[in-house]
Amino acid sequence: MPAYKAPVADTMFLLNSVFDWPKYGNLPGFADTTSDIVEAILEEGGRLCEEVLQPLNITGDKEGCVRLPDGSVTTPKGFKEAYKAYREGGWIGLAAPTEYGGQGLPYTLAAMINAYSASANMAFTMYPGLTQSAIAAIVEHASVELKQAYLPKLISGEWTGTMNLTEPHCGTDLGLLKTRAKPLGDGAYAISGQKIFISAGEHDLAENIVHLVLARIEGAPAGTRGISLFIVPKFLPDADGANGARNTLSCGSIEHKMGIHANSTCVMNYDDARGFLIGEANKGLNAMFVMMNEARLGVAVQGLAQSEAAYQNAAAYARDRLQGRALTGPKSPEKPADSILVHPDVRRMLLDIRSFNEAAHALVIWSALHADLARRAPDAKERQSSDDLLGLMTPVLKGVLTDVGFENTVKAQQVFGGHGYIAEWGMEQFVRDARIAMIYEGANGIQALDLVGRKLPRDGGRAMTAFLGEVQAFIKENAASADLAPYLEGLKKGVGDLQQATLWFMQNAMAKPDNAGAGSYDYMHLFGLVALGYMWGRIARAAMEQKTADPAQAAAMDAKLIAGRYFMQRKMPETAAHFARIQSGADVMMSMTAEMF
Amino acid sequence: MPAYKAPVADTMFLLNSVFDWPKYGNLPGFADTTSDIVEAILEEGGRLCEEVLQPLNITGDKEGCVRLPDGSVTTPKGFKEAYKAYREGGWIGLAAPTEYGGQGLPYTLAAMINAYSASANMAFTMYPGLTQSAIAAIVEHASVELKQAYLPKLISGEWTGTMNLTEPHCGTDLGLLKTRAKPLGDGAYAISGQKIFISAGEHDLAENIVHLVLARIEGAPAGTRGISLFIVPKFLPDADGANGARNTLSCGSIEHKMGIHANSTCVMNYDDARGFLIGEANKGLNAMFVMMNEARLGVAVQGLAQSEAAYQNAAAYARDRLQGRALTGPKSPEKPADSILVHPDVRRMLLDIRSFNEAAHALVIWSALHADLARRAPDAKERQSSDDLLGLMTPVLKGVLTDVGFENTVKAQQVFGGHGYIAEWGMEQFVRDARIAMIYEGANGIQALDLVGRKLPRDGGRAMTAFLGEVQAFIKENAASADLAPYLEGLKKGVGDLQQATLWFMQNAMAKPDNAGAGSYDYMHLFGLVALGYMWGRIARAAMEQKTADPAQAAAMDAKLIAGRYFMQRKMPETAAHFARIQSGADVMMSMTAEMF
Repeated sequence: MPAYKAPVADTMFLLNSVFDWPKYGNLPGFADTTSDIVEAILEEGGRLCEEVLQPLNITGDKEGCVRLPDGSVTTPKGFKEAYKAYREGGWIGLAAPTEYGGQGLPYTLAAMINAYSASANMAFTMYPGLTQSAIAAIVEHASVELKQAYLPKLISGEWTGTMNLTEPHCGTDLGLLKTRAKPLGDGAYAISGQKIFISAGEHDLAENIVHLVLARIEGAPAGTRGISLFIVPKFLPDADGANGARNTLSCGSIEHKMGIHANSTCVMNYDDARGFLIGEANKGLNAMFVMMNEARLGVAVQGLAQSEAAYQNAAAYARDRLQGRALTGPKSPEKPADSILVHPDVRRMLLDIRSFNEAAHALVIWSALHADLARRAPDAKERQSSDDLLGLMTPVLKGVLTDVGFENTVKAQQVFGGHGYIAEWGMEQFVRDARIAMIYEGANGIQALDLVGRKLPRDGGRAMTAFLGEVQAFIKENAASADLAPYLEGLKKGVGDLQQATLWFMQNAMAKPDNAGAGSYDYMHLFGLVALGYMWGRIARAAMEQKTADPAQAAAMDAKLIAGRYFMQRKMPETAAHFARIQSGADVMMSMTAEMF
Repeated sequence: MPAYKAPVADTMFLLNSVFDWPKYGNLPGFADTTSDIVEAILEEGGRLCEEVLQPLNITGDKEGCVRLPDGSVTTPKGFKEAYKAYREGGWIGLAAPTEYGGQGLPYTLAAMINAYSASANMAFTMYPGLTQSAIAAIVEHASVELKQAYLPKLISGEWTGTMNLTEPHCGTDLGLLKTRAKPLGDGAYAISGQKIFISAGEHDLAENIVHLVLARIEGAPAGTRGISLFIVPKFLPDADGANGARNTLSCGSIEHKMGIHANSTCVMNYDDARGFLIGEANKGLNAMFVMMNEARLGVAVQGLAQSEAAYQNAAAYARDRLQGRALTGPKSPEKPADSILVHPDVRRMLLDIRSFNEAAHALVIWSALHADLARRAPDAKERQSSDDLLGLMTPVLKGVLTDVGFENTVKAQQVFGGHGYIAEWGMEQFVRDARIAMIYEGANGIQALDLVGRKLPRDGGRAMTAFLGEVQAFIKENAASADLAPYLEGLKKGVGDLQQATLWFMQNAMAKPDNAGAGSYDYMHLFGLVALGYMWGRIARAAMEQKTADPAQAAAMDAKLIAGRYFMQRKMPETAAHFARIQSGADVMMSMTAEMF
């Protein structure tokens, strides 16, 4: 049976030593979060994940969700009680506005709790996670009436939220969607259509389910400019806000999937269901993008979270498993065999994972801080530049953290040999669960296109210029440090490749957009390596300082420094291969006719 | 529902145009296999795979194997009939010796049929596949009496075979195994112990199951030098060769696994079961290695096979799925959207797979031909040099074809977007099934160690010298061809990296063996890229010739030439990253203490 321990000490090191948490004390919601309080919050949330959510991970996978003939869906045993504990702990509304019952704390803390929770039980975490995304969209775009009617119960977790985008014939291309909205004359709309792949679309954890549904108002323009966003609740709230009439929507079936079995993935049928417009008519995609960007960060965190949980178990197994002898002679001659940790190739697998996890942990915090700054910084310019960076990083985080996170679960499974393939050890579940994160909330190829086609050129490349400037300033600032040199060398080379790749797109993709499409995926991963490498530079600097300041932490800091060196030696060289692939362009791949495939 | 079409035309192109099949006509068993006959055999075998095995793949996964309270195991619906058709077609003994009822045909053909079969239904194919491995070990090492008693029924498929190596406390490190063998005085032994992960250990497809079991004879030396190999049949054959007494062995349980659900993975308990020594006492590992090498090639073929099946379905889906518009403007303006094949990033995923599959298909044939030559060539020197190459290539094939084959199933799944995650589409099953191939028959890290630690230095590096010589001769021979230049450039660079990496090991791993261990995995993949690149060089040359000779095949040949260019542009650049990682050595990773992980 797998285990999980929330990495609170690592988070605290990153917040305090790497990102200088106290300096954000002037932001709303940050004032009271002293280091002690943050640690207490993370410890408490971590405990819930370790003690309540994690034990339900394997059983939930095995049992799955069940749709009953009446269209209701039951979640696995123990999920109701766990959800009750989760929502009563106030974790769903941790960063939500206080005026609607939230705690108004930093989004950064909510992101950390979500990471722990997704490590412990990814399928479970999707229920509150989608609710948080729905809250974000409603906060940003809905009318005051809708906010008052829906936010308090979503924030308290009495109700949960969903996102309804996909239809059988359209996933990525939302312009094709057919779900219709007919004005009813009283301000509401009658929504009709079928949505698929609706996570948490129906379940037994909450009293009500608030569906956010993309639909086309009668007479609206074709394509993406005719799409509106609606709130369509399972039960229509009455004047007191309690559940009133059952709305005419239902779960038609649930999917049998590779993983996340404990989350119900529903086909949702809307049959003149009563719905309420969020924001402006035909501007639904804008509103949905708020939800999707929040959700994309959440999915990025899932990638890291599964990688972290898989790592912890693989490292523990490697320490305990005796098999073979070290290449340099027995290390534990008194035992029948050495621990498999003596084998360099086992260390390779573990350090591939570990060296990614620590930097990705930092990158999530760095980005989440920018999300906080983008909304809460007193200075408009600072809000803007943080919003720039967050927009730029969102596809990179989503694409890279889920791709590499998945690969890492596969590596962790490999450490277990044959046992990794057997369900009871839990390692194969990490692989199956992590796999979806590469697909949903925009498949990773779409993230790459978003990065190259939209985020990169936006505002004359302002965000990218700022990112490159920040990394180069860091390199310059620390150029004199001999200790940091091994961390900066690879980073420098990586930034160089990233800059040249960006230049290559400018020179070759304007006239031939396929050159951008052909290189977008490699560019996203090249970008990811540089961003992670930059995090390693900052972690290494902080770890060196910490080591001097507090000798008791020397071993913990040395472990970080070793993992960082490993990343620089073994991961950063991949930037060159990405750049080479980008430069090969689109000509060869586009010369295949459809029939040749 | 996924589909599958055996790639007979590709196989025929490789056999005839790339590998000059007729030149092997002098070998025993090859004489009658003219091109027409080979094609007829492959077509017939392919049809069985397409029509009988493939339709049982998804249903078999869903239903799985069931162990009944009496210890018997049932296979999924339809498997019995399919197995009957398979064995009656003579496919199990296709390459087995004629004196025991086999057809004595080239192993190369058997490898192709196994590839088709593993594409259609991997879990099914393991039943006859393990039988073929057992046949190989018995042919090579058993006494005439044992051969006469067991080979005819294994070759006809009336009985099936298994390999019993792993025990709960030992997988890779067979020196730790505890299963005991006590001489009974009549030449037989009483075998006692527990084996785990025994594929096809118990089932309802055959009348008898012949277990090949590693055990330690009482008083044998400790470690790997005290291990012997035994035949331990489920039913003891009587004097007429029919099933006699039930032996005292049983299936204690079956495993719940990530995939290959239709193959029973058993815990086998031996309780003074009657067994018969194969070959010499305490030399069991030698005999088992014959079986394992055969099985390793079979597993390599599984990696390619799953990648091929996944590709076929992803390409068909991409052609049909309409979503979005080409970056260069609508390609099918009359339709609501373009096919997703217009998107470079979709082509990237498909060509990543395709450009691997075609070269891997060639590499399997090239290696299988060497397996045939190693046993059948009239000249001892030729037998030796083929055996050298086969030994060298076995870990590369096993490690690289299963690693990349798995990655390719993940990519093919990605092409389907959300549908790829849903069981009914069949794509996630390819991922789950392909995953085991990286683990069993020696986890891929062990393959890498076998390559670097044993195969590379063996006989003063004779095999490696021969391989490098062959590739360099090919490059030199074709240096004047401008058409081939794009294929040779990348190969040349790759060979250079491989040579330098080999040199690096010679200079850095003698004194510090951990440097070899730390770089072994990257070396295996670097080697794989060069071997696949070499295959592309040969395919490209043959395709150019074929295109001139038969203009009707121009499109088919152009498709190969494009896929080959793609491989050179986008895969070969990875050799540099592998070399960089190798050069980073072991120091950093070995500096982590066990507690730091």
